[in-house]
Order: sequence, then structure tokens, then C-alpha cells
Amino acid sequence: MNWPKEKKVLALCGGVGGAKLALGLSKILPPEQLSIAVNTADDFNHLGLRICPDLDTVTYTLAGVNNQESGWGRANESWHCMEALTELGGETWFKLGDRDLATHLFRRAQLDQGFSISQVTENLCRHLGITHSVFPMSDDQVGTEVKTDSGWLDFQRYFVEQQCQPQISQIRFVGSETAQPSPRFKQALEDNDLGCIIICPSNPFLSIDPVLAVSGIRKQLAELKKPVLAVSPVIGGKAVKGPTAKIMQELALEITPSTVVSHYADFLTGFVLDNEDAAQRDTLPASLAIQVCNTLMISLEDRISLAQACLQLAQRMS
Amino acid sequence: MNWPKEKKVLALCGGVGGAKLALGLSKILPPEQLSIAVNTADDFNHLGLRICPDLDTVTYTLAGVNNQESGWGRANESWHCMEALTELGGETWFKLGDRDLATHLFRRAQLDQGFSISQVTENLCRHLGITHSVFPMSDDQVGTEVKTDSGWLDFQRYFVEQQCQPQISQIRFVGSETAQPSPRFKQALEDNDLGCIIICPSNPFLSIDPVLAVSGIRKQLAELKKPVLAVSPVIGGKAVKGPTAKIMQELALEITPSTVVSHYADFLTGFVLDNEDAAQRDTLPASLAIQVCNTLMISLEDRISLAQACLQLAQRMS
Repeated sequence: MNWPKEKKVLALCGGVGGAKLALGLSKILPPEQLSIAVNTADDFNHLGLRICPDLDTVTYTLAGVNNQESGWGRANESWHCMEALTELGGETWFKLGDRDLATHLFRRAQLDQGFSISQVTENLCRHLGITHSVFPMSDDQVGTEVKTDSGWLDFQRYFVEQQCQPQISQIRFVGSETAQPSPRFKQALEDNDLGCIIICPSNPFLSIDPVLAVSGIRKQLAELKKPVLAVSPVIGGKAVKGPTAKIMQELALEITPSTVVSHYADFLTGFVLDNEDAAQRDTLPASLAIQVCNTLMISLEDRISLAQACLQLAQRMS
Repeated sequence: MNWPKEKKVLALCGGVGGAKLALGLSKILPPEQLSIAVNTADDFNHLGLRICPDLDTVTYTLAGVNNQESGWGRANESWHCMEALTELGGETWFKLGDRDLATHLFRRAQLDQGFSISQVTENLCRHLGITHSVFPMSDDQVGTEVKTDSGWLDFQRYFVEQQCQPQISQIRFVGSETAQPSPRFKQALEDNDLGCIIICPSNPFLSIDPVLAVSGIRKQLAELKKPVLAVSPVIGGKAVKGPTAKIMQELALEITPSTVVSHYADFLTGFVLDNEDAAQRDTLPASLAIQVCNTLMISLEDRISLAQACLQLAQRMS
């Protein structure tokens, strides 16, 4: 892998799947060459705290303190606060581990002091020993809502409390039209040394769409004269994790790489396809640069290999 | 002990010492006969939470989940959140245990929903299985501040962060003049069946004064035609716990029962003195009804005995 030292990489990223590839990228690119813009439309206010699930998943993963079994929260977690809150009859549908709570209290205190989510994230990263640049898509609040049979639901109510059970007919990102990209997101996009953009294998509809919906971003990607590539979040007609496949079905979309590519059609120039879907290559536009490799990230080596494959593709496209 | 079944008792109470006597009273009086008004001038905002140290000490004590060694917080506590917050460089001078945090999150959520501190306390009590009536002195915010060499300090900064090290020259209760007594405090004071008021052996200057400073309370006590008795927080020239003696010294007051009695002179009609201070009896006003007994509360039996002694004195005064 000979990714040029002067070229920077910007990753757009949601939760678990995105964090895995971000970790892989962080292992092969030095801090000054990698920026990670994270979805914050899943963020919500709960028990007086500001919870930022995707930011926390990414930072915990990069810091190596993430819970690998559950895919969210911290490793070696205890649940004494939630146990006591259950006894008090408090709201416990959203599980907050004792160690994880420190992040939310830290964030609450810093927000109350007037810091932006970008600044709080920077401070959290510094204390967690993360040297790569991680930032929210925006410092303005954007909130994902899904339309179900019983009306619009806040994302976490749908995702966690109702465990994605309701059928979805529509998704919206409240506040996205006026939300401005965060300072470092803007800077990364406008950087002359930007070498490529990698859209991580996160849920296109719930995790990547809100990032693209931030004011001006989608247009900026379409006008960018640089490689914009995505890693397929779909392998063999299934999503690796989460409700991606279920949602695609409910939105009457085929669960195929082709659907994902169409979804990103206005800006995508490269696509990474899993070996299992090699035959699907012919269904994709001829103009698209394609890399076929293993995209399932089980081990750290898988994460690094996929990151390398992305950079190889980007280099081939440059 | 033949305290009449129709007569109610109202206890004014701060933290540890007050909670001990409140527990003793709760063991001999049924819920409908005992009300406990608690100091809330130590309350403060921290990490986005509303911390109410004295209310929590009283409720934890009555529920039997208090930490008896430390005198604050919950028993069987863990500190994983604080450990993680330390790693993040967050504010950890005020220790919040994992189980204790549930109380503060519950309170934050309920305050954000528009409940008053009275209502939140009532809800907490219900879930903790407390059947006696515990309420804040006021639903309005009052904040204790102490004047030191380096200016006015918020109470918890003085009490916890600086461990009562600075010398105090003055104490004030910001907001007390306009603070109204909480609905149940008001009701308890105006109840025709009120049989006596007991001022618990809490710090007169830091824990009881703020209760007395709530709008109209001190005057109401002075005009009340019912026994108002206090238990001495001073034994043998020392305070049982906390900075009472140190503060009395700094305010150039003798550390004697007589000083405490003078402090409450405008309304006090009865006083409970420790056996060790029996000789001090002669220094007290002749008009004052006196009970001499053991006031040091080590065991639960001590707490109950002292509660009984208080009621005996009140009965004798009626």
C-alpha cells in the first residue's frame, strides 16, 4: 500500500460498521492524514444528558475501550447505576453503563460551559489518547425520525426501545437543512490535499444519509473532483449488522450492492464489493471504479485489509 | 413513651446527624404522625445534575441504603463512573457513586419534566419504600455561601472540595428571602394537630439556619404556641461530626450548648442536652424545658432512645 504521504483521507461514518473501518484506516494512516466525520443525527437528550451514540462508538473503538461483543458501549462495563435506576422506577430502556456514563456527564458539563459538540469530542479524544481527527458532521442538532404505522418516532425510540420492530415508510432528518457542517468537516472537505472520501459500510439510510443531508454536503461531494468511494454495507443480500436489510425491504428496495450504488449515484465514483457479490459487478455502472475483496470485518487484520483495499482503489482512481 | 396518637411531629433536619434522629423518630412514629423538613441550601448543580446532599442522606437513611461508614452516599457503592471520569479529565472533586448517580439522573429527568423538588422527593421516597413524609424546606433554590479570606465560596466548594479548610467569617443563604416554604412544610407548620417541632442535632449555622431563613419560617416558629425543641449538636465542647465546632470557633462563639440555645433564642422552648454536659444546665435560661440524656447516636437503639427522649420532653412541655 503506497498511499501518498501528502494526500489526506476523509471517512464518513456511522456506528459499528463505520467504526471498524475507521479503526482499520487509523492503523495505516498517520493522524495528519485521516479525518473521520461522524453521524450525529442519532444523538438525543436523555436523563438530562446528551447521548451521541455514533461518536461514542467511533471514539471508544479508536481508543480500544469499546465493547466488542455488544457493538456499543465500553468494555468491562458495570451496570450499577441502571440497576439502581430500575429500583427508582426511572427510564432504563436506553442502557447506560457506569463507565459510559462518565462520557455523558463530561459532555453535559462541557456543553453547559458553552463548548460545541466538536470541541467536546476533541477533548474526549485527547483524554482517550486518540490522535486521529474525529468530529461530528455538524455542531447543530439534527434528529433522525422514522415514519411508522403509529406516526413519526424519534430514532432511539425506534432503534433501541422498539428494537426496530415497527415498519418504516419514511425517514427524515429534522434540522438538517439549516445544519452547517462542523468546522473540521468543512475544512477537511475544502482541503487541497484531500485525496479521497471513503463512505464507510454504515447504514446508508440511517447513518450516512444524515451526514449527506447536512447543508451543502451532498452537492459538495457531487462537485468534488476527487475519488468518492463507498464500501458496500450489504453482503450476499444481507446486512452485516443492524436493520439495514429490513429497512431496505420496507422501503421496497432490493437488498443489493446496486441499490446502494444508486442511492449514492450523484457523487459516487468508486465502490468496494464483497467477494461473495463479485457476480454483481455487472449490475453496476461501467463508469464506477470497482474493488472486489473481503469486506466482512471480524478481526483487526480484516479491518486493516479493507482499509488498504479502499486506499488501493482510491489510488487507482486518482 | 406515650406520645398521643393525634399529635404530629415535625422535624427540621440537615444531613448525617439529622438523618440519624429522623430515623429514630420514624421507628417510633407511624407515617401519618411524622414529617421531616430537610435543608436544601447545600444543593447545587454539578455535571448537569441537581445534587441534593441532605435530602439524599435523609432518604437513603430512612430507606436503609445509606453508607454508614462514610456518612454520605449509598451502601455497597461502586465508583466506576468516577474512575472513567478521572481518565477523561472531568470534574471528580465531588464523588458520585454509580448507584447514587441513579438518584441524580432520576431527579434531573423529573425536574426537566417540570416536577418540583418536593414532587421528585416524594417519587424517590415511594420507590425507596419510605412511608414517612420527607420534603425539602422549599421548592425554590437557596444556595449557601461562606465568606473566606479569598471571598465568597459556594458551599460544596468549601465543604467538599476544600474540606472546610478556609476560615469562615460569614455565612449567607442566597435566595432565602424570597424562597417560599414547600407545600408540605407549610402544611405541617399550619396543621392544628402539630404537637411539637424537633430541631435535629444538625449544624445550626450550615444546616438549620437555611431552613429557618426560608421566608416567614423563623417568625412562624417564634409565634407558634407549641413546643419547639432542639437536640444539642455539641457534646463536651466538640461537635459529633463535621465542621460545627470549627465554624463556631471561627465565628468567635463558645462551643457550648448555651451558644446553640442563644442561637435559637427567639423560638426555642425545649432543649435536649447530653449527659456529659449535665453541668451546663445552669448556664441555660430557666424558662427552657431541659432533658438530659445520651445524645450520641452510635446504634439504632441510640437513635430510637434519643427520639423517645425528645418526645418525652415535648410531652412534658405540652
